[in-house]
Amino acid sequence: MSPLDQLMKHLAKLPGLGPRSARRMVLYMLKRREAVMLPLIDALTRAAQDVKGCTTCGNLGGCDPCEICRDNGRDRGLICVVEDVADLWALERSHAFRGIYHVLGGTLSALEGIRPADLKIEKLLERVKLNETREVILALNATVEGQATAHYVAERLEDAGVTISKLAHGLPVGGELDYLDDGTLAAAMQARRKAG
Amino acid sequence: MSPLDQLMKHLAKLPGLGPRSARRMVLYMLKRREAVMLPLIDALTRAAQDVKGCTTCGNLGGCDPCEICRDNGRDRGLICVVEDVADLWALERSHAFRGIYHVLGGTLSALEGIRPADLKIEKLLERVKLNETREVILALNATVEGQATAHYVAERLEDAGVTISKLAHGLPVGGELDYLDDGTLAAAMQARRKAG
Repeated sequence: MSPLDQLMKHLAKLPGLGPRSARRMVLYMLKRREAVMLPLIDALTRAAQDVKGCTTCGNLGGCDPCEICRDNGRDRGLICVVEDVADLWALERSHAFRGIYHVLGGTLSALEGIRPADLKIEKLLERVKLNETREVILALNATVEGQATAHYVAERLEDAGVTISKLAHGLPVGGELDYLDDGTLAAAMQARRKAG
Repeated sequence: MSPLDQLMKHLAKLPGLGPRSARRMVLYMLKRREAVMLPLIDALTRAAQDVKGCTTCGNLGGCDPCEICRDNGRDRGLICVVEDVADLWALERSHAFRGIYHVLGGTLSALEGIRPADLKIEKLLERVKLNETREVILALNATVEGQATAHYVAERLEDAGVTISKLAHGLPVGGELDYLDDGTLAAAMQARRKAG
């Protein structure tokens, strides 16, 4: 296989890319080898070598423990449980949380054969026991698997003597009622709060 | 900047990618370093080193002259003129053309300041003069710039004593009348052929 076909094959396997977008990308890069392609190869090589998983919370970053776990300004009494590193990053971008995290690494799924032992649940129980944890926030996706996993984790934490909470359902900020699904609308109605 | 941010910045600059898809891609790759990331780095490095532009036609490939220019089974009397390497590849995938190509490297554009000297037009005239060219097919995009460029190239080739043709306009195969724009529909009507 030619180096061109080889490269397109590898690119087309990445999420969100197919043969067509991979082709476009390859042409774009080959026309800009010095400006785009070589710096990208460099960045990929550095990331492949230097990015580590945090052995405490499961975040990815340049050091272990990660920057969040090292940060003494963070409230170690609050642990936010997420499915994936992407969710942790999303919460960080929102600047809405100043505690620490725990990445489960997926959700329970009978279909895909993912059992509790495949997720970092024991590690979470350990952390909750060892530290001064006051509250565990289950920030799992509002999917069937996410909610089943939240339910299971909550059960396992029952005797740990910590508050267990989860994210509120409701109208997205900037969202319009007319475009919202019935389930969310019902949840928003049920969880209504006094105005003003 | 951390190696993670650096990598996402470089990826987000590629066509079709933004910050969100770059993030997803980075997480996907970092979870599969051996299986996905290292082979991709390898393929990028090889392509950056080994892929050459063909000095005859402008195609990209592992050798110069490219495989198409080297292929003795091709009809050297037919030169198909395209804007970009991507168009050449598209025509090759259609298996509809057995001649050789000429990549202009863009289209004339007053707006972007692209003049005839910026395109490989002189080189095309040279090739047409030197070789046993019978026909030049202008396979340029059906955009304003593409058609203006086709017009200009046709004018320059007027005295070369070769047939000049361009791709037919019409109904795309599998296309529905109702979804077609008026211009294409009018062109298809005008260029109608006897059925059967």
